[in-house]
Amino acid sequence: MGKGGMSHGDGEGDDGVEDNMAAWLLAVKTLRIQPYNLPPLGPHDVKVRMKAVGICGSDVHHFKNMRCANFVVKKPMVIGHECAGIIEVGSEVKSLAVGDRVALEPGVSCQRCDLCRDGRYNLCREMKFFGSPPTNGSLANQVVHPSSLCFKLPDNVSLEEGAMCEPLSVGVHACRRANIGPETKVLIMGAGPIGLVTMLAAHAFGAPRIVIVDIDERRLSFAKDLGADEIIQASTNVQDVDKEVVQIHKAMGAGVDVSFDCVGFNKTMSTALNATRPGGRVCLVGLGQSEMTIPLTPAAAREVDVIGIFRYRNTWPLCIEFLRTGKIDVKPLITHRFKFTQEEIEKAFETSAGGGNAIKVMFNL
Amino acid sequence: MGKGGMSHGDGEGDDGVEDNMAAWLLAVKTLRIQPYNLPPLGPHDVKVRMKAVGICGSDVHHFKNMRCANFVVKKPMVIGHECAGIIEVGSEVKSLAVGDRVALEPGVSCQRCDLCRDGRYNLCREMKFFGSPPTNGSLANQVVHPSSLCFKLPDNVSLEEGAMCEPLSVGVHACRRANIGPETKVLIMGAGPIGLVTMLAAHAFGAPRIVIVDIDERRLSFAKDLGADEIIQASTNVQDVDKEVVQIHKAMGAGVDVSFDCVGFNKTMSTALNATRPGGRVCLVGLGQSEMTIPLTPAAAREVDVIGIFRYRNTWPLCIEFLRTGKIDVKPLITHRFKFTQEEIEKAFETSAGGGNAIKVMFNL
Amino acid sequence: MGKGGMSHGDGEGDDGVEDNMAAWLLAVKTLRIQPYNLPPLGPHDVKVRMKAVGICGSDVHHFKNMRCANFVVKKPMVIGHECAGIIEVGSEVKSLAVGDRVALEPGVSCQRCDLCRDGRYNLCREMKFFGSPPTNGSLANQVVHPSSLCFKLPDNVSLEEGAMCEPLSVGVHACRRANIGPETKVLIMGAGPIGLVTMLAAHAFGAPRIVIVDIDERRLSFAKDLGADEIIQASTNVQDVDKEVVQIHKAMGAGVDVSFDCVGFNKTMSTALNATRPGGRVCLVGLGQSEMTIPLTPAAAREVDVIGIFRYRNTWPLCIEFLRTGKIDVKPLITHRFKFTQEEIEKAFETSAGGGNAIKVMFNL
Amino acid sequence: MGKGGMSHGDGEGDDGVEDNMAAWLLAVKTLRIQPYNLPPLGPHDVKVRMKAVGICGSDVHHFKNMRCANFVVKKPMVIGHECAGIIEVGSEVKSLAVGDRVALEPGVSCQRCDLCRDGRYNLCREMKFFGSPPTNGSLANQVVHPSSLCFKLPDNVSLEEGAMCEPLSVGVHACRRANIGPETKVLIMGAGPIGLVTMLAAHAFGAPRIVIVDIDERRLSFAKDLGADEIIQASTNVQDVDKEVVQIHKAMGAGVDVSFDCVGFNKTMSTALNATRPGGRVCLVGLGQSEMTIPLTPAAAREVDVIGIFRYRNTWPLCIEFLRTGKIDVKPLITHRFKFTQEEIEKAFETSAGGGNAIKVMFNL
Repeated sequence: MGKGGMSHGDGEGDDGVEDNMAAWLLAVKTLRIQPYNLPPLGPHDVKVRMKAVGICGSDVHHFKNMRCANFVVKKPMVIGHECAGIIEVGSEVKSLAVGDRVALEPGVSCQRCDLCRDGRYNLCREMKFFGSPPTNGSLANQVVHPSSLCFKLPDNVSLEEGAMCEPLSVGVHACRRANIGPETKVLIMGAGPIGLVTMLAAHAFGAPRIVIVDIDERRLSFAKDLGADEIIQASTNVQDVDKEVVQIHKAMGAGVDVSFDCVGFNKTMSTALNATRPGGRVCLVGLGQSEMTIPLTPAAAREVDVIGIFRYRNTWPLCIEFLRTGKIDVKPLITHRFKFTQEEIEKAFETSAGGGNAIKVMFNL
Repeated sequence: MGKGGMSHGDGEGDDGVEDNMAAWLLAVKTLRIQPYNLPPLGPHDVKVRMKAVGICGSDVHHFKNMRCANFVVKKPMVIGHECAGIIEVGSEVKSLAVGDRVALEPGVSCQRCDLCRDGRYNLCREMKFFGSPPTNGSLANQVVHPSSLCFKLPDNVSLEEGAMCEPLSVGVHACRRANIGPETKVLIMGAGPIGLVTMLAAHAFGAPRIVIVDIDERRLSFAKDLGADEIIQASTNVQDVDKEVVQIHKAMGAGVDVSFDCVGFNKTMSTALNATRPGGRVCLVGLGQSEMTIPLTPAAAREVDVIGIFRYRNTWPLCIEFLRTGKIDVKPLITHRFKFTQEEIEKAFETSAGGGNAIKVMFNL
Repeated sequence: MGKGGMSHGDGEGDDGVEDNMAAWLLAVKTLRIQPYNLPPLGPHDVKVRMKAVGICGSDVHHFKNMRCANFVVKKPMVIGHECAGIIEVGSEVKSLAVGDRVALEPGVSCQRCDLCRDGRYNLCREMKFFGSPPTNGSLANQVVHPSSLCFKLPDNVSLEEGAMCEPLSVGVHACRRANIGPETKVLIMGAGPIGLVTMLAAHAFGAPRIVIVDIDERRLSFAKDLGADEIIQASTNVQDVDKEVVQIHKAMGAGVDVSFDCVGFNKTMSTALNATRPGGRVCLVGLGQSEMTIPLTPAAAREVDVIGIFRYRNTWPLCIEFLRTGKIDVKPLITHRFKFTQEEIEKAFETSAGGGNAIKVMFNL
Repeated sequence: MGKGGMSHGDGEGDDGVEDNMAAWLLAVKTLRIQPYNLPPLGPHDVKVRMKAVGICGSDVHHFKNMRCANFVVKKPMVIGHECAGIIEVGSEVKSLAVGDRVALEPGVSCQRCDLCRDGRYNLCREMKFFGSPPTNGSLANQVVHPSSLCFKLPDNVSLEEGAMCEPLSVGVHACRRANIGPETKVLIMGAGPIGLVTMLAAHAFGAPRIVIVDIDERRLSFAKDLGADEIIQASTNVQDVDKEVVQIHKAMGAGVDVSFDCVGFNKTMSTALNATRPGGRVCLVGLGQSEMTIPLTPAAAREVDVIGIFRYRNTWPLCIEFLRTGKIDVKPLITHRFKFTQEEIEKAFETSAGGGNAIKVMFNL
């Protein structure tokens, strides 16, 4: 890498085809590693040599369905957005130096609209987000990105951990919006990757007791090892909600102050709503179903508020600090690793899609 | 009534049977005006001669079904809770004097639990609330009540207006929790009594533009006269939500910052959720359906929060101030008046239950 | 720069010298109208033909002392920052059209730092602010400015009113930070321009009662005409604080929920601190003295918080809406008008500096 | 009162006169252990056999000056308010049982005023607070207290630790009001008892880095052992503020998000104000000087807010939970122990007053 700046060629970003390949999503379950012409490097941009890229559930949705929620892949697109790498080039950038190891926040907002100016830039209507169509992603040897969205990693935080700042940010943003602290007893519905990062974040925010619920015994056992105070195996039958709420209250030894639904189905949300104490909060993190049938009114009549979450904002510095100090250890979440080769790439996505014991699948570039 | 002060007799609650009658709910649609033995007068209590008592939707539920939500009338109970009257007796009370005209906040909380101590006393699990079983209500010649829940009315606020502080408090509490101010464009679903008091409160909190939606043309016309900026007639067909959201946005001339669902059905809540801008709030005030089928996830993914409401807290002084200064005029809401006699009482409740052009039905005692 | 590019002779884009003059502050009390080479027009910028520019107290400080607080004028600088004009040229800008009348927010923040990204851009350390050294100001025929900081004026809001959005923004930001609403009884110390715009803003935010204090009878009389509920003439003697607090409480008829000190001297701040009720807030808006001797501890022991203010953020749309709807009328504040000529310019600044009956001095260009 | 019931002669439950003694403050530095007639036991009260009572700085003020701030001791008063004991009698109380070990929250608020009803009961104007004139304190064999202010201690929390909930509550309340969390880098001015409990609380709320400043090397060393990340020895010379702010920034390795002034003098507050980053908060906890000369304006112009603190509210359950889980260990703070005898009592107060290596002086009864 870092051949020696930007050599020959063509106009904008090329430094040898071999150095400039990306994972293009061409069709359902069809990924090809092909050349990628980088966009031009603006005065506040840096070029980053990618070293670690994780696979997210939304990437898997794109891979399997060419869409995720309302975002539809209409033409070939580079996939991926959980990433970290090494600064190769920065034009006028002073805050970072060539050779710095950085984690990348994947969304570039307009910085001009009322939401951006009010600090809620994650809701910007003109957001350009790695690997969210039609914006190309970051599963590539190199990307160009604003320097203000590249965060230097301390020596004791690896590039893989840097890539994990992206999913961890979801948990951190959820904990901030739900106002988690040392007085907040927390229920987490779902022990998948998002449930687990939310649990790790809630713990780092000081939650004194965390009960986690899932249908999968292995995931629960994993969650217990990661620090859940109590685990509860639930059924998929919505008739069991009342019974399971009793179990939750018993396991908590108290009321639930904040519930995170990291799944987003009728049953998980019903359980979250019914389990939460008067004046508490339910934070909907997992976006499983679009339309939900839920006992919202009795919860509202206990002044249980429902907090919505979209991605995150201003979370990288805190995530990196949690990793640096060891308040959060994300390494156990990385269960599978693949190389960035045509042979391995679809296998990696199939592994991530398969669920089971795969929590986080990571590419090492 | 008001024979002439407190006559003869004794100790604590008696002032002659004729002076001490109440409206007892005995069975479905069966109200009897019968003698009522007042509870003892504690050191911080006052005895109030009732002068104006309104009928609330929850009273009508009790009247028609012997229940409202989870509260079931199991034995004869005095009905009513929207009330104002005149202080007759106060034992050690210094803040009020005999003859003061007062509006009564109907709920007596324990003042000792964590929710009371934290200022969220409306959520107190031991709340004793006028006319909410098993606690007797205030549709009676006299009641005994803590002096701290009796609020003196200024000269230019009538006792009927005083009784209206109760429904108005629902709107005020909703506006406080939803944080309404001069930057908040407001949508109100439902132009019934609760929709209207919420509209009046939102206006008093400075909402610069209010669009109100209902299915009933007469109610909308009434709302327009009361100050709605725009009215929209909606269908009962949930298929029309998208179309009506377009109408709402057009009528607002902007996004909706806060929506109040003052009905609480699938369609009204779906409209509220879909109409609200990224980062906005939906406040569920009307408790129509217990279980709802709603597009919660897309709203949550725009970080639209759902705020629940239960009654109110610390609202009487503000309501009285709004009435005193004329920022809010509740008099047009009082559409029907009845006497407190056996002949009229059931007719009054039937009128309230009938909907139609009845907004608020008031007893003059 | 800017010579070529926009050629001459054509109505709107002309920058022949005669069209491109600015008020340069050269030395103490020395202003010269001289040619001004505009900076280059970036893709998101517009060029604005200035039509109304007000004089602020900070401009007067620069004029008289070549400094204001820590900002020192070290080389000739164009003065002025309260302004409105007409769009002449916009390169790629779609949100505004040539001919639009706009009010200008004068500060350009970096949009990349943590404070900008968190929505507190007014605290950005790299802020470039019109007429705050070393950044040139806007008392000029033309300026170049980011389009996102130019806010279109409705037909019923004049350009002079548009220029008044700047001082009004200070009051609006103070009211937001101090959380003014229909439950907040407000004390304002100082009836100068900032005290008056704070009073107008507090009124628009719904403050039910406003008492204003000053030493100058004429200013108080002006404040009363503008809408103050009560006025109190104070002395300059700090020994009178206790006595004046009694007067304030009597005039308020209640405790003070929020005090704005729009002067910022020992006596005004002492009065504000002592007058405010337990749990209230004091907002320091006027920056009169750097070091203060004040009874902070007794106020802190009543949990009176002191809220600091620096300029404003995201206030223009709300200010314009207040002007459009007539909730706020700033026209009476404009007491003097001058032409943008060498003959009048220093006279205008002397008028503003003179205090007395000058509230806002405005240039019409 | 309480005659029958608990018979005499047995260590703890006896209420013969010899069992019912209290420490009466008669005059400056004059304490006498004399009989104490308990007030009557109300239906929600309990009688508590005191076992551990700490000495607070305010007790020392009363002891030495017969006053503390505005509170003046005008007649003999039982002193003390940091306490824990064992329930002896509860009349109608169900939440606690005879024999329960409890920590006592010392202030009884009116529960009826607007501040109480709003959850800010610590600001209640009718507060009756142990050992704050004219209310008798708790340095006595027995006290009568509302059961809702007695909090059961878990088995692994000692009665001495229970008594420490009172000073710890000051730190907890300060951290809550200043909104401390895992993103808040904290400066603490003062390493006395209040500085130390604030440090412990800030740590428990997740503060990632705490720098503490004092003039006393021994106290700093103690603070370092208790968990301060960095300690800085300051002078008493206000000229050194700027230099020490540089030291603080260097020690923090970043800006200061929140400063706690746990001393409350010109110099400490000046340092706190100058050291805090734009948008940060300074919390005034120590009430050293009534009037302060401080650079308030430059801090306000960075939007640094000053947060006032008075005692605490709703802190006991959290304090007990911190002690139970070991998140906070207060035992090292208890440096001296005395018996509740006439011989030892004044010596104990002199020890506490002497400062030096005495942090917390505790009576074991």
